[in-house]
Amino acid sequence: MNGAESLIRTLMQGGVDTCFMNPGTSEMHFVAALDQVPQMRGVPCLFEGVVSGAADGYARMAGRPASTLFHLGPGLSNALANMHNAGRAHVPMVNIVGEHATFHRQYDAPLTSDIEAIARPYSRWLRTTAAASDVGQDCAEAIAAARTAPGRIATLILPADAAWGEGGRVAAVPASPPAPAVEQSRIDDAAIALRNGKRTAIILGAHLTEGATLLTAAKISAVTNAKLLAPFAFTRISRGAGLPGVTRIPYVTGDAIEMLREFEQLILLGATPPAAFFGHPTRPSLLAREDCEIQTLAGIDEDCTGALAALADALHANKAEPHLQVSERPALPNGEITLAGLAATVAALLPENAIVVDESVTSGRNMMAATKGTPPHDWLVNTGGSIGIGLPMAVGAAVACPDRPVLCLEADGSGMYTLQALWTAARENLNITTVVFANRAYAILKGELAGMGGNPGPRALDMLDIGRPDIDWVSLAKSLGIPARRATSLDEFAMALRHGFMSNGPNLIEIPL
Amino acid sequence: MNGAESLIRTLMQGGVDTCFMNPGTSEMHFVAALDQVPQMRGVPCLFEGVVSGAADGYARMAGRPASTLFHLGPGLSNALANMHNAGRAHVPMVNIVGEHATFHRQYDAPLTSDIEAIARPYSRWLRTTAAASDVGQDCAEAIAAARTAPGRIATLILPADAAWGEGGRVAAVPASPPAPAVEQSRIDDAAIALRNGKRTAIILGAHLTEGATLLTAAKISAVTNAKLLAPFAFTRISRGAGLPGVTRIPYVTGDAIEMLREFEQLILLGATPPAAFFGHPTRPSLLAREDCEIQTLAGIDEDCTGALAALADALHANKAEPHLQVSERPALPNGEITLAGLAATVAALLPENAIVVDESVTSGRNMMAATKGTPPHDWLVNTGGSIGIGLPMAVGAAVACPDRPVLCLEADGSGMYTLQALWTAARENLNITTVVFANRAYAILKGELAGMGGNPGPRALDMLDIGRPDIDWVSLAKSLGIPARRATSLDEFAMALRHGFMSNGPNLIEIPL
Repeated sequence: MNGAESLIRTLMQGGVDTCFMNPGTSEMHFVAALDQVPQMRGVPCLFEGVVSGAADGYARMAGRPASTLFHLGPGLSNALANMHNAGRAHVPMVNIVGEHATFHRQYDAPLTSDIEAIARPYSRWLRTTAAASDVGQDCAEAIAAARTAPGRIATLILPADAAWGEGGRVAAVPASPPAPAVEQSRIDDAAIALRNGKRTAIILGAHLTEGATLLTAAKISAVTNAKLLAPFAFTRISRGAGLPGVTRIPYVTGDAIEMLREFEQLILLGATPPAAFFGHPTRPSLLAREDCEIQTLAGIDEDCTGALAALADALHANKAEPHLQVSERPALPNGEITLAGLAATVAALLPENAIVVDESVTSGRNMMAATKGTPPHDWLVNTGGSIGIGLPMAVGAAVACPDRPVLCLEADGSGMYTLQALWTAARENLNITTVVFANRAYAILKGELAGMGGNPGPRALDMLDIGRPDIDWVSLAKSLGIPARRATSLDEFAMALRHGFMSNGPNLIEIPL
Repeated sequence: MNGAESLIRTLMQGGVDTCFMNPGTSEMHFVAALDQVPQMRGVPCLFEGVVSGAADGYARMAGRPASTLFHLGPGLSNALANMHNAGRAHVPMVNIVGEHATFHRQYDAPLTSDIEAIARPYSRWLRTTAAASDVGQDCAEAIAAARTAPGRIATLILPADAAWGEGGRVAAVPASPPAPAVEQSRIDDAAIALRNGKRTAIILGAHLTEGATLLTAAKISAVTNAKLLAPFAFTRISRGAGLPGVTRIPYVTGDAIEMLREFEQLILLGATPPAAFFGHPTRPSLLAREDCEIQTLAGIDEDCTGALAALADALHANKAEPHLQVSERPALPNGEITLAGLAATVAALLPENAIVVDESVTSGRNMMAATKGTPPHDWLVNTGGSIGIGLPMAVGAAVACPDRPVLCLEADGSGMYTLQALWTAARENLNITTVVFANRAYAILKGELAGMGGNPGPRALDMLDIGRPDIDWVSLAKSLGIPARRATSLDEFAMALRHGFMSNGPNLIEIPL
C-alpha cells in the first residue's frame, strides 16, 4: 500500500469519508487511490475557496470533519479566507496539502513555497509528513487534533514521494483530549450571578446553540429569566417553532449597544465580550454598557457543555420547562419587492428541517426575525467576516445532509467571491435554492463610508459599486448548469421559492434590488 | 491631512498612480481619500486574486509597480496565490492591507488575524505602520523596496486609525539600493566558456528578454553561437519579426531534456538550473545533461543587466549584428478546429504591438512556435505555476498599455479560478480579446495521472473532469458584461478573432475542444 492509500484508509477509519478537493500534479497519487477506496466521496471544486467553505458547511451540519485536498502552497493560499471563517466557527477540518517530492524541493521549481508558513496562521495542528510509512499515523493524529473540542483545523502536508512511496500503514485514530473542565468556582459564580436579580444575558458561542446544549441553556433561562444571546457571527443556531429562542446580537454598533443596554450582567460560554466588528473613530469598541459585569463561565477551548450542565444542576434547572418558540408564520405577502416582504415570503414558505445559509449581508437583516416561528430549521452564517462563504457553505451543508433542503441567502458582492460553488452544486445535484440579493453594490461599505461623517465623493462611491455592468445572475447561474430565474415582485419570488423548495436539485433566484 | 491621504499622495509621488482594489470597512478612509487625489486611478475588482494578478500584469508591462488595497488578513489571503506568481515573476508591487484600528485589535473581532504572518511568505518587505504620522514615510520605503531590482513585493499594513488619524506627511521616495555588481571573475569565466567551442546556451531570467538587454544578449549570441533560452515559466518575452529569438524550455520533462541535450554548457543570468516543474518517481528533476557545466553569470538579485553588458564588452560583441527573426506568417487556415489550426489562426491575425497573456496550458502549446515571425509583440505567461493568473494579468496589462491590444489565451480550468476579472475588463472597457480553450478538463493532470503508469480509475479521472455540467463561457462572459461568441470551426474563430482585435473593448471567444 502506498502512502496515499494509507491516508485515505486512515481518513475512512477516522470517520472522515468526504473530501472536497482541487488537486494538482503533486496530489495525483491521492486522486488515483480514490479508486482503491471507493467509500471515500471526492467532491471536485473549481476553486479552493469553495473547498474550504464547503468543508466548513459540512462540519457544521455533520458534526465531524470533512477532509480537503489542496495543490501546494498556492492551492492552500486560495483556501485561507474561508479557512479563516472556519477557524472562527470552531469547526473540525482535516486539510491535506500536496507538496513537492522531498528530493525535488531543492531545485526551487516554480510552485515551490514555504507551505508550513502559509498554513500556520490558520492551522491549530500542522505537520509535514516525512515518509510513506508515517502518513497513516500523521493522518490519524491530524484527525484527532481536528476533533479536539470544539473543533480545530488540522493541516497535514504530504510530499509527493510520501504519497507514492510504498510502506503505507493504516493507523487507528487516537482519542482526542477532552476539553478541560472549568473550576467549580466559576460554576458557583455564575449561579450566584443568575440569582442576584440583576438583568442578565448568557452569550452562547460555537456549537452551543443546537441540540441538548441549547435545551439546557433554555432551562437555565426559564428558571433565572436570563436571556439567551448569540454573537452576531455565530456558527449554527437550531431554531423555529418548538425550539428555544436565541437572540442574535446585531451587526450595527448602535443597534447592538441599544440591545445590550438592559443587561447588568453577561455570562459568556464559549464567547468573548461582545465587540464591534470594526473599530471606529468615535463609537466604542465594546458593546455592553460600561458598568456591565462580565463573567466567563467557560472559554471556547474549555468544556462548555459540561459547564452548562453543571450550572443547570446548581440552579436545579433540569426539570424546568423551557420557553419554546410558538409556531407562527406571516401571511404570504405580495406586490413590490421590499426587504421586509422578501423576509416575510421566506418565513411563509420555509420548509421544515431546512438549512438556511445566510450571507445576505445588508439585504437579509430582517430574515431571522421574520422566520423565528417557522418550522424547525438550522441557520448558518459567516462566522469570520470574510465574504464568500455562503455558496460554498451551502454546498458543504447539502453534501452533509442530502435529505434536507438548503436555502442559501446570498448578497451579490459576496456571491461573486466564490461563485464557482454553483458548478459543484450542479455537478453533485445538490438540493440548494440560492437567492441572490442583487443590489449592485457593496452596500454595507456605503453605509460604513457614510458613517465616517462627511460626504463621500463620487470616486470613493465608485469603488463600492458593483453595477456598471450589472451582473446577470440568471445567465451566470445557467452558464454553470444551475436553473435560474429572476423575481421582480414578491409574487414572482414566492413562486420561484416554492419551485425551488419542491425541486430536488439546485436552482437560483436573482432579486434585483 | 490624514494618514490615508498622505499614503495616496506618497504613492503618486513615487510614480505609483494605479491601485487595484477590493476594499472593506477598515479601508474606507483610503477610499474616501481618492476624491482628494483624483490622479490616483482606482480599479475595482470583485475578488482579491484579480487584484494581485492585475498588479502583476500591470508591473510586467509598465515596468513600475501598481499598488493594491486589501481588506485585512482574509482579503490579503485571497490575493496570495497570484502574489506567489508575481513573486516568481520578480515584479514590483506595493500592497496596502487595511488592519483593525490599533485599539480594536485586543477585542478579537471576527476579522482579526495575524496579518504579518499571512503576508510574510510572499512579501520581501513587510511593515505595520504605527501611526498616521508614519504612513507617508513607511509608504515611501515600501515603494523603494518594491523598486529594488529586479522587482519585489512590499506589503504595508495600515491600521484604520493610522489611516483616519491627522498628521499625515507626504514623504519622498528614497533611491532603491542598486543591484550588487558581480565579480569580474564571473564575467571572465563566462567569456572563456563562450569561446571554448562547446555548445552553449544562455538562460535569461526575469526582465532580461525584453528591450536593450535582449538585444545585448542577441549580440553575444551572434558572436559566440550560444543559444538564447528562457525558462518555461518566464516573465515577459518581447518577440516577433525584427526581434531576437528566444527559445522557451518546454514544460514536458522529456521534451525539455531532449531540447537541452545538445548543450555542454549553460550560462545562467537571473535564472536557476533548469528543473522539472514537479518531481517524479522515475524521471530526473534536473533537465540538463549530467555532464553539462552550469555557470551562474548573475543571480536574480544581482546586476544582471550590468553583467550582460560587461560580458558583451569582454566578447567585443557590441557591434555584432544580432540574428533577428524574419517576418513570417502562416496562411489563414480553415476547416475543423485543431490545436495547430488555432495557433496558425492566431499567428495569421495577431496585430502589431499586441500583448499576449498566455495561460492556455495544454491547449496552447503550439502558440509560441506558430507566432514567432508575426509582428513584434510581448508574451506573458504564468510564472509561478498557480493557475488563475491569465484573466487578471490581462486586466493589468491592458490598464498599463491602453493603446495596445491584449490577447488572453486562457484554459477553461484556469479561467474559472479568477473569472471575476471579466467584470473589471467590462467595467474599465479594456481592450482584451479572451480566447477560452474549453476542453472541459484539467487536461494537464490527466496527462500527469497517465504518466504515473498504471490505468487511472474512473473515480480518479472524474476528479479531473470539469464537464458535467459543461460551462457555457459565452453566457458566463455575457453575464459579466463581456460580448462573447462561440467558434466551432477555424473560420468562425478567425472571424471572431478579427472582430475582437478590431473592437476597442473586451470580448471573449469560447472554443469547445
